[in-house]
Amino acid sequence: MHKEDQLVSRITRALPSVSAHHHFQSLRVGIGDDAAILSPGGPTDWALSTDAFLEGVHFLATVHPPDSVGYKSLVRAASDLVAMGATPRDFLLTLAIPASQTGTWLRHFLAGMAQAARSLGMRLIGGDTTKSGSVSISVTVLGEVPRGHALTRCGARPGDLIYVTGKLGRAQLGLELVLNKLSRRPQFQNLLRPHLYPQLRARLGEWLARNRIASAMMDVSDGLSTDLGRLCVASKVGARIEAARVPRVAIPATLSRALKKSKQSSIEMALHGGDDYGLLFTVPPRRVNRLRRAPGFSDLTAIGEITRGRRIILVGVDGSESPLKPKGWDSFGQK
Amino acid sequence: MHKEDQLVSRITRALPSVSAHHHFQSLRVGIGDDAAILSPGGPTDWALSTDAFLEGVHFLATVHPPDSVGYKSLVRAASDLVAMGATPRDFLLTLAIPASQTGTWLRHFLAGMAQAARSLGMRLIGGDTTKSGSVSISVTVLGEVPRGHALTRCGARPGDLIYVTGKLGRAQLGLELVLNKLSRRPQFQNLLRPHLYPQLRARLGEWLARNRIASAMMDVSDGLSTDLGRLCVASKVGARIEAARVPRVAIPATLSRALKKSKQSSIEMALHGGDDYGLLFTVPPRRVNRLRRAPGFSDLTAIGEITRGRRIILVGVDGSESPLKPKGWDSFGQK
Repeated sequence: MHKEDQLVSRITRALPSVSAHHHFQSLRVGIGDDAAILSPGGPTDWALSTDAFLEGVHFLATVHPPDSVGYKSLVRAASDLVAMGATPRDFLLTLAIPASQTGTWLRHFLAGMAQAARSLGMRLIGGDTTKSGSVSISVTVLGEVPRGHALTRCGARPGDLIYVTGKLGRAQLGLELVLNKLSRRPQFQNLLRPHLYPQLRARLGEWLARNRIASAMMDVSDGLSTDLGRLCVASKVGARIEAARVPRVAIPATLSRALKKSKQSSIEMALHGGDDYGLLFTVPPRRVNRLRRAPGFSDLTAIGEITRGRRIILVGVDGSESPLKPKGWDSFGQK
Repeated sequence: MHKEDQLVSRITRALPSVSAHHHFQSLRVGIGDDAAILSPGGPTDWALSTDAFLEGVHFLATVHPPDSVGYKSLVRAASDLVAMGATPRDFLLTLAIPASQTGTWLRHFLAGMAQAARSLGMRLIGGDTTKSGSVSISVTVLGEVPRGHALTRCGARPGDLIYVTGKLGRAQLGLELVLNKLSRRPQFQNLLRPHLYPQLRARLGEWLARNRIASAMMDVSDGLSTDLGRLCVASKVGARIEAARVPRVAIPATLSRALKKSKQSSIEMALHGGDDYGLLFTVPPRRVNRLRRAPGFSDLTAIGEITRGRRIILVGVDGSESPLKPKGWDSFGQK
């Protein structure tokens, strides 16, 4: 089992808590989904989530530009709202930084975060600041979704088609450029952007929730193999994915040699690479036709279908079948 | 100006944001108060706040027991809800810890946090976990308050009486015991508790808000001199405090000598010591009589009154007047 998921189970058992999919007073969805869903009673439910972004774990002070750190720390958190079909609204920022970084670094960090806030239509409503030895960011986000329309991970049923947005592995390729010290070369700047400035599918997420098209949804943040595994566990189903249909990042020939060290092929980046922040969702066959009206429809790809049983199978280009093991990002894993 | 407050101003200017006391759509209170207040439209408003608790800044790994770290990280955050008169309900936990601390340390941390959650009637509804080099905790808390009843910092008017709860400086004395390596002595355990396991005045806060007794309220987290200064700035008023009336921690004679190094008298601890998490509130003279029915009334002390102008004056025991400068906790200050 994914080590971070094990830790979450321990925390949930130790504290008075409410798990996902247990209705309790005003709470519709608790721990274990992308965001908690609260129902104050009016026509609108609220989605609430929190996300940490730490120097040395999620970004490197010497490599990642501060405006990307600011941009990404808000976008990552907001992705959990989009993953429920909610519209991002407000955020709280907890910022711990060394006194030496309160000048230029902070200015660029805030500029990047402001760019993300404007593009998502979000506004800061509170937070906490403190001095610390290294940069530690925690962002809490609040979104709105029509009452009862939030899309959880637990609604997928056998026969549902599995969709993803965009090409998978693009953020992973950008990360490889950074790790291989190729990020300053002008010819690779476009390949770097998905890693530094990921784009969310907020309009698509809202549309799928409002129109009740998807049966289950989440964001791809830790990699398809890991996140699809979580969706299947939550829905108590299995899945069958066709490798040939997985939309994947294109690695330019000029790069293939330089990235040899990382030993990752395009399909491996697509299956296990994290940080893309696209959407992964399932659609019952009878609703697939309506999907054509989705915002950004041309960006969607059906990669397989939900099955009975609990196995997740990858069908190779040659028709061979093998289990798709979760090999995505796990901060507690031995990678 | 308090350095942390300067930083908050910069962040607020740089990001799309909503300041305290600006009504905006569903937002009643934004940045600059203890918690943001959101109004979903029903009979209940929601208070939302976030608080960081970091190893090496807010606690010391070698000195502070893990169950106190867990207890205090939730209580500190919940104190911001109590300070608005809200009833604490739900929380999200962002926990970054070294893999080596996921065993015994984490078990005790969670036990302490569970104790705080039970005593406050709070439940965990979400969060984020990740590995990191040192322990970094961020807690987001959500509370409820009857619509329009939240108590902000900005309602104090000249002539209002200023109240505090409990004896001030008790947490500071506990901290001095820790810093002077006296925390393991059995005879000082009672003096240590206010620092390790602070108690909130949740029932009093709710009562003051529901019955519209207080005109302004906040918690004393960074020290009376600093926090009263913030309340006066928010309310655009001044204050006059009588030193003789400030309820203060008693320092046992056996301790006075041992603490000589810290050079702090009982009144200095009471005026500038942080971490007490009591309440500071103002009451118009015509409502003072009703205060007798408050939960924990015997624990309340009137220490002075709100004045016109912007000065905060401390009246000494001999009748001398001097400005009360903010000397409380400031993580970015040169202490």
